Amino acid sequence: MRSAGAGRKVEIVRRAAEIFDTKGVAETSIEDIAVAIGVRREAVYHYFRDKGEILCDIIRPQSEALLRGMERLMVLQIPARARLSLAIAAHLERFNPHYIEMTVAFRELYGRSSTPGMVELRRVWKSYEQLWVDLIAEGQGAGEFDRGQDAKMAAFGILGMCNWASSWYRPGGDTPIDRLIESFTAIAMGGIASREKQA
Amino acid sequence: MRSAGAGRKVEIVRRAAEIFDTKGVAETSIEDIAVAIGVRREAVYHYFRDKGEILCDIIRPQSEALLRGMERLMVLQIPARARLSLAIAAHLERFNPHYIEMTVAFRELYGRSSTPGMVELRRVWKSYEQLWVDLIAEGQGAGEFDRGQDAKMAAFGILGMCNWASSWYRPGGDTPIDRLIESFTAIAMGGIASREKQA
Repeated sequence: MRSAGAGRKVEIVRRAAEIFDTKGVAETSIEDIAVAIGVRREAVYHYFRDKGEILCDIIRPQSEALLRGMERLMVLQIPARARLSLAIAAHLERFNPHYIEMTVAFRELYGRSSTPGMVELRRVWKSYEQLWVDLIAEGQGAGEFDRGQDAKMAAFGILGMCNWASSWYRPGGDTPIDRLIESFTAIAMGGIASREKQA
Repeated sequence: MRSAGAGRKVEIVRRAAEIFDTKGVAETSIEDIAVAIGVRREAVYHYFRDKGEILCDIIRPQSEALLRGMERLMVLQIPARARLSLAIAAHLERFNPHYIEMTVAFRELYGRSSTPGMVELRRVWKSYEQLWVDLIAEGQGAGEFDRGQDAKMAAFGILGMCNWASSWYRPGGDTPIDRLIESFTAIAMGGIASREKQA
């Protein structure tokens, strides 16, 4: 029973991701997802409280992969600048249409929902963002980055620049992802570079 | 009749904004809005096709104000750096909880909805973003900004950094908005500064 249930749950998440992608989250109902799988609505509600919970299940694997990558990167014995450069590339390469849904999920459910899925997703993202703050603070300590800047605002600014790209950048369009990475890396590096060395 | 209708429409938008704010867009139904005003659902549908259309009516005045401000700023006879600095401050000062709903509206409705409200909102934002691209291109032409960078990606990167703040920055919290403006301005300016002068 348990494994059959797990299979059904996976199927719901997979099909929901496809439907969200083509139809948009706001215009997709639980009913739409049920119909696509060929089950009744109740069968979906058996596993998920609402659409937001399905969204979390779609987003969590990507989020966890980003966190693991960042953890591995943090212990490399290379300058903070080099690590930040790798972090920006990794973040943008995981670029996918789900980023913006992630924002929706965060915003809509933050502080309201305490489903296990949401609590876990929140934990993953807090850890991930904190590593970015730590990395910038390390670079400031080493004199690579401007000590006059607030590490949290710098980290969130750079992450925000990358995240927002999901609202305008189309993978497979005119601009290859490498150009986006190169451009944003240049802005981030110039933006938080230590002013001491330049003076 | 016409003025009574306009009054009702304004009332719907005002109440919907309050409910979106406290309850979140995803968890608000047309029914919720109708109940709050004390009318039937049909009375709301008389003016708006769906929730997204109400969202547009909430967001449009702010968007138009940003565009007008940017238009005024563009003709100032001061360096591009100074204008960019003013643009960032103006953008962040208009910071409000509706930014993220704006993203939702754009993403969900882009290419799908052709309601007059959505078409108008799209036009306003395209014009606004284009002025940012123009400003950076002007600064590149004047040797103030790095000519090696893509003006569009730089403009969208800086705007993204600012827009994304709506997902983590809380007005009235520990960090005054002036600190955020100062921090993001430093990142943007350093990020796109001409490398020629530094060399």
